[in-house]
Amino acid sequence: MALYVQKFGGTSVGSVERIQAVAAKVKQWREQGHDIVVVVSAMSGETNRLIELAQQISSKPLPREYDVLVSTGEQVTISLLSMALHEIGQPARSYTGAQVAIHTDSAYNKARIEKIDTERMRADLDEGRVVIVAGFQGIDDGGNITTLGRGGSDTTAVALAAALKADECQIYTDVDGVYTTDPRVVSDARRLEKITFEEMLEMASQGSKVLQIRSVEFAGKYNVPLRVLSSFQDGPGTLITMEENAVEEALISGIAFNRDEAQLTVQGVPDRPGIAYSILGPIGDANIEVDMIVQNVGSDDTTDFTFTVHRNDYEKAYELLNAVATGLGARKVEGSTSICKISMVGVGMRSHAGIAAKMFEVLANEGINIRMISTSEIKIAVVVDDKYLELAVRALHQAFDLGNTD
Amino acid sequence: MALYVQKFGGTSVGSVERIQAVAAKVKQWREQGHDIVVVVSAMSGETNRLIELAQQISSKPLPREYDVLVSTGEQVTISLLSMALHEIGQPARSYTGAQVAIHTDSAYNKARIEKIDTERMRADLDEGRVVIVAGFQGIDDGGNITTLGRGGSDTTAVALAAALKADECQIYTDVDGVYTTDPRVVSDARRLEKITFEEMLEMASQGSKVLQIRSVEFAGKYNVPLRVLSSFQDGPGTLITMEENAVEEALISGIAFNRDEAQLTVQGVPDRPGIAYSILGPIGDANIEVDMIVQNVGSDDTTDFTFTVHRNDYEKAYELLNAVATGLGARKVEGSTSICKISMVGVGMRSHAGIAAKMFEVLANEGINIRMISTSEIKIAVVVDDKYLELAVRALHQAFDLGNTD
Repeated sequence: MALYVQKFGGTSVGSVERIQAVAAKVKQWREQGHDIVVVVSAMSGETNRLIELAQQISSKPLPREYDVLVSTGEQVTISLLSMALHEIGQPARSYTGAQVAIHTDSAYNKARIEKIDTERMRADLDEGRVVIVAGFQGIDDGGNITTLGRGGSDTTAVALAAALKADECQIYTDVDGVYTTDPRVVSDARRLEKITFEEMLEMASQGSKVLQIRSVEFAGKYNVPLRVLSSFQDGPGTLITMEENAVEEALISGIAFNRDEAQLTVQGVPDRPGIAYSILGPIGDANIEVDMIVQNVGSDDTTDFTFTVHRNDYEKAYELLNAVATGLGARKVEGSTSICKISMVGVGMRSHAGIAAKMFEVLANEGINIRMISTSEIKIAVVVDDKYLELAVRALHQAFDLGNTD
Repeated sequence: MALYVQKFGGTSVGSVERIQAVAAKVKQWREQGHDIVVVVSAMSGETNRLIELAQQISSKPLPREYDVLVSTGEQVTISLLSMALHEIGQPARSYTGAQVAIHTDSAYNKARIEKIDTERMRADLDEGRVVIVAGFQGIDDGGNITTLGRGGSDTTAVALAAALKADECQIYTDVDGVYTTDPRVVSDARRLEKITFEEMLEMASQGSKVLQIRSVEFAGKYNVPLRVLSSFQDGPGTLITMEENAVEEALISGIAFNRDEAQLTVQGVPDRPGIAYSILGPIGDANIEVDMIVQNVGSDDTTDFTFTVHRNDYEKAYELLNAVATGLGARKVEGSTSICKISMVGVGMRSHAGIAAKMFEVLANEGINIRMISTSEIKIAVVVDDKYLELAVRALHQAFDLGNTD
């Protein structure tokens, strides 16, 4: 007799047949005696169709009206899912974000949830109905429709779970859980039974795009147990929990990687205060996002300053940097787009020395040169030539014994 | 400095280009200093697309969820029109039925408007904004989305005009006004400057399908001046007003006709009380709508009972009637699907005898036999063989001098 909030994304509700499959799955949970609140996204393709309509009218559509427009996508899904549940004999009721109500601030297109009313949902659950809520949307104090930004349905589900004090927030996706690394790269990559919120944040931001980062932060903040499961096959998925609840005592939970970045280095920069700002200021002004930043201790009054950007921004960043470097009297700007970043993530490494040393040893044994190193409490990230990506990930996966044990 | 409520239907907003054209037209009215509230329908085709989705899930979709679904159609249009107005420098704000709010009863799919809040609209108008309202939808006391039934956007516009005490409710359509008869049948059919609500009701129900009947009733009840104009060409259209305001003193305003009906007659029915009910009871039970009903004074204790139904219902009605006729001891059932109904409409005929006589004379001069006659205060309708339709309408149009005078 638990209360579950279940979220189904655009692919899971991408056609009438899939909506009917979701209805069947939800009904099964009900038949096991659980109370169910379902959050759904727009049918896949629908949001893009709506955005294209807006862009035919304006290259920069009015944010308030953009939200009125795109919020219809989820509204279509909630009504169809409710019909599908009724059709198989399961009472249900759909709610838009405004109807629930999910109160947000007034930041159109990227609103933040402030408060959720639970009375209507409670009343429906008490009467045996499945509650269906449109993801990704809410209403501000002025009664205006808001959206949480793309992918925000995960956040809606977590926020509802927190407000309803649900036993679990279950995110149904096209993968059956979080893996030690990408199974397409390492064939014996293992599905994790559990992972901590912090590890999940590092894994997600490092390229394991299973969940929206904001929803994970939200779940961590409100201590909502989050589970990633597959819409298309049965299985327990991966539970994302507070560190205290973590059972697995592994040092390393997983290996994330990312091929989308490029590296830029300004060599021989005068080593004085304000230099980092002088270099990154123009990059930020050009709306280029910077990921890793590394600056080593200088020598001879100069230092080398290195950072990574998305590959698409490489050319532009390189040009900006050349102008800056001349002004600063730096020796040279160099860079590469053929790099990759590999991150080992695990709360266990906090209390264990030697993880970094072992990582570097494994890479050295494979003859892989490390270009950059960056660490956090629960992560060690290295940048290497991207031709080594598969080799490095497989060697590390094996050396840290992350594979299937059966 | 007037306040106009303007309604644009699905064809008028059927594409991004047309929405932009509507925006340009609305902006022109603003530039003349008028306050404008716009009511829009779903883009043409969109409502059908949504209904098809629902019908893939259920042959009888849940009424509450059906309204959640189809109401998204207008929501898309309001946001796009608001964007288009902003794009040409005209501030605007869109509202769903729930946002305005348009309060209705809870009769999903065919709700009736009970009350409209005007504060938000007034505030927007005061600040120079165009107000855009989704037609066809509202919200009930429980916060559930309702729809007024198909074509209900006209009713929304009239109700808004009544609530706001607008100077005029302007319905933009694909015709440039109400004509004395169908211009495809009579080439010199004349656009009417004015027509009374009652005449419009008779014209609309008789086949001149320019406006939804409910919206005309509503406009008459609340004394809202209603104007029919073309979305695609400029012009004054036709003003539909209270009789008191009518300037034109014509006896006949127009000629409506209808080819969709079939006639059924039960001959030699015993002439006793209850006979009409015995005949029409089974027809009503089968959900067949009856239009004209004629029963003449009987002779020899028997009478003939005639009525018309939609042609699509003819076969079914004929079968039902045969069974009934046998039970009643009637002589025979006969009928025809090759008939048409022609109606002359005009408030002027109330106080003028001789209109009917002249109508029958005109038809007789053309050798047209009249099968049925039915009259109301402001209408005379006849049923004739449908092969005579064009001949009859043209002869009457000319005889009553309805054509263009220039």
